[in-house]
Amino acid sequence: MLGSCLNNVRTKSPLVHNITNYVTVNDVANAILAAGASPIMADEPDDAYEITAICNALNINIGTLNSRTIEAMFRAGHRASELGHALLLDPVGAGASTLRTDTAVKLMKEIKFDVIRGNASEIKTLVSGSGTTRGVDADKADAVSDSNLKFMAGFVRDFARSTGSVIALTGAVDLVADAEKCYAIRNGKPEMGRITGTGCMLSGITAAFIAAYPDNKLAACASAVCMMGLAGEIGYSHLQEGEGNSTYRNRIIDAIFNMTPETLERGAKYEIIG
Amino acid sequence: MLGSCLNNVRTKSPLVHNITNYVTVNDVANAILAAGASPIMADEPDDAYEITAICNALNINIGTLNSRTIEAMFRAGHRASELGHALLLDPVGAGASTLRTDTAVKLMKEIKFDVIRGNASEIKTLVSGSGTTRGVDADKADAVSDSNLKFMAGFVRDFARSTGSVIALTGAVDLVADAEKCYAIRNGKPEMGRITGTGCMLSGITAAFIAAYPDNKLAACASAVCMMGLAGEIGYSHLQEGEGNSTYRNRIIDAIFNMTPETLERGAKYEIIG
Amino acid sequence: MLGSCLNNVRTKSPLVHNITNYVTVNDVANAILAAGASPIMADEPDDAYEITAICNALNINIGTLNSRTIEAMFRAGHRASELGHALLLDPVGAGASTLRTDTAVKLMKEIKFDVIRGNASEIKTLVSGSGTTRGVDADKADAVSDSNLKFMAGFVRDFARSTGSVIALTGAVDLVADAEKCYAIRNGKPEMGRITGTGCMLSGITAAFIAAYPDNKLAACASAVCMMGLAGEIGYSHLQEGEGNSTYRNRIIDAIFNMTPETLERGAKYEIIG
Repeated sequence: MLGSCLNNVRTKSPLVHNITNYVTVNDVANAILAAGASPIMADEPDDAYEITAICNALNINIGTLNSRTIEAMFRAGHRASELGHALLLDPVGAGASTLRTDTAVKLMKEIKFDVIRGNASEIKTLVSGSGTTRGVDADKADAVSDSNLKFMAGFVRDFARSTGSVIALTGAVDLVADAEKCYAIRNGKPEMGRITGTGCMLSGITAAFIAAYPDNKLAACASAVCMMGLAGEIGYSHLQEGEGNSTYRNRIIDAIFNMTPETLERGAKYEIIG
Repeated sequence: MLGSCLNNVRTKSPLVHNITNYVTVNDVANAILAAGASPIMADEPDDAYEITAICNALNINIGTLNSRTIEAMFRAGHRASELGHALLLDPVGAGASTLRTDTAVKLMKEIKFDVIRGNASEIKTLVSGSGTTRGVDADKADAVSDSNLKFMAGFVRDFARSTGSVIALTGAVDLVADAEKCYAIRNGKPEMGRITGTGCMLSGITAAFIAAYPDNKLAACASAVCMMGLAGEIGYSHLQEGEGNSTYRNRIIDAIFNMTPETLERGAKYEIIG
Repeated sequence: MLGSCLNNVRTKSPLVHNITNYVTVNDVANAILAAGASPIMADEPDDAYEITAICNALNINIGTLNSRTIEAMFRAGHRASELGHALLLDPVGAGASTLRTDTAVKLMKEIKFDVIRGNASEIKTLVSGSGTTRGVDADKADAVSDSNLKFMAGFVRDFARSTGSVIALTGAVDLVADAEKCYAIRNGKPEMGRITGTGCMLSGITAAFIAAYPDNKLAACASAVCMMGLAGEIGYSHLQEGEGNSTYRNRIIDAIFNMTPETLERGAKYEIIG
């Protein structure tokens, strides 16, 4: 199942419109290409409105948002929604500032997203409508662990129910849930946190996976999350003496490029809760 | 000839002003440095107007354009034109949205570019004044192949004649033409299409080549195009097991860095048509 | 001493707010992570004002400035100043345009920076209030060398006295001075000049070092400068046949990632003048 999701991306090569931050945008583009899809970026409102219409998916990432790009997010978001495109929200830094929290909450209110993907602090902020986040990283107190796994799985299922979206709360353990079912995914390496943009890359890839397999968004999203974590493991295993986070970033994207459905099926580590 | 074009870049180290998209801007800067020239980026209209005056070339790339950067393109474009600087237009995504098509067409109307470099769909859009492009990639129906080579060579020569620019239509086969002569260049690897920014990098480098050899812009442009393709071949040959598009990007820039005039002369694969 | 400065960064992991150019922003983020700190980027004025409050340091880099980001620089700068955060100014391209020179001068007038880091041409521009810079690179005539070392050390000490900031003038020889003392640092490789962003990365890292060791800003700044140069040496020693500036960039960040306080102490090459 997870492998055939990747296979669909390779076969259909969806075109993903990204309105995303300028910090990690190049890695997002190369990660989407590595997965087998095509990226396009456009964030001037008029241009975004038109470009999104020729795409299959829209990935909205609010890192380094500004008044111009916020307008682009809403205009493209509404249009992509009307056209039935795959829609993903990455609420980068929600909880860290009023503008980020309010923008993410307003986007969620006006536009139905297929997937909302963030770290624990960002997702908690969206649930409560306000929050505190340490910059763009999750607060340690918010982390998913074995001791709170069942509780957190219930928490993301509830949020999935109230929003109608698949929720991907990613961290040491990743939780991917709809209203009924929650995947707890244990792929990945802690060292991925020392690279900027692994979350942003995952969001871009996930948008492609959803577009390529609209019939089962939960499985498509879980497949993307497993693949990103597994690429982190494979990339890490290729690191050589003296290499660090910059080369690691390249090796993760390389591992996505070389990922096969078989490798993904074999390497995915998850359990399904409830 | 092609080798001495590269030699000129290394000797004169032209300063290239880039108004370019934020997706691939870092790779453009490093590719220009690898070629032996110097990059500078400025896209606030007042700043761009002044910065362009101290440069030797202006590279205008309309990917991720917005109202502010469009104004900067026109102001810097007019000034660079008055000062006799090398001028290149990269119409990224022309045909994919009205704003992109119109901006590219208007830039061409108001400013005389030494080189216009794009994929087949973008160039066709500029010729007709409108078009349809699949995102930022060329439509397969527009590709240059052996079966339409003569026709396409005539097409780019005609466009070069009507614009007074050297036209570089790049793809599986690259066509570089002025009104009289067309180079058909067969360097490069299809895998370059799985990296974001190879076209943008080529545009930045080409601007430097034109600035360093203004007496023969056609040869300078052909030399840059051969070099980019050859760097793609050399970079590919250095790829190791498990490496993918992210490392490939680095190896291409590395290959430009290590390119010698002799390697370029020996590795360039082209024929001249008409 | 230099080693314990790095140790402090690793232990305290300061959060660095960066308002920086979009050319090198990804490398700045990964370099800050490699050093052991955390980056966040925000440049919409309202967002920057709020985000800076949850951080420990603010790194203002005026490359690719625009009217929106300039407003963010002032608003975040004033607030970070009120909150006693570590403050660094990187006057990229001061001397190359009126907007850049005036913005840097005005920032210096209104906000007290802990560190001002630039190349010789940029620093000379700030001293005189105007200047000429060849793009974003230092003019050769401005370079620090053995023949003018004492004079230049006096020059930066004077500027440090008049501004109350630590001045880091970086180039072939780096000078790091307060009003009393000047470090002349000889780490680094000339090939670092063929990579875009080594200066920007250093500024981001230096902001983290200052935040982690506010009691001795001079030593903290000197430690960051030595580490960056040493990472350039280590990264260079890891380069293999056929590798160039793109891979070199990765290896420098990797070397920062793997830097230990002991390696830094052992590898730092400096003398103290006056």
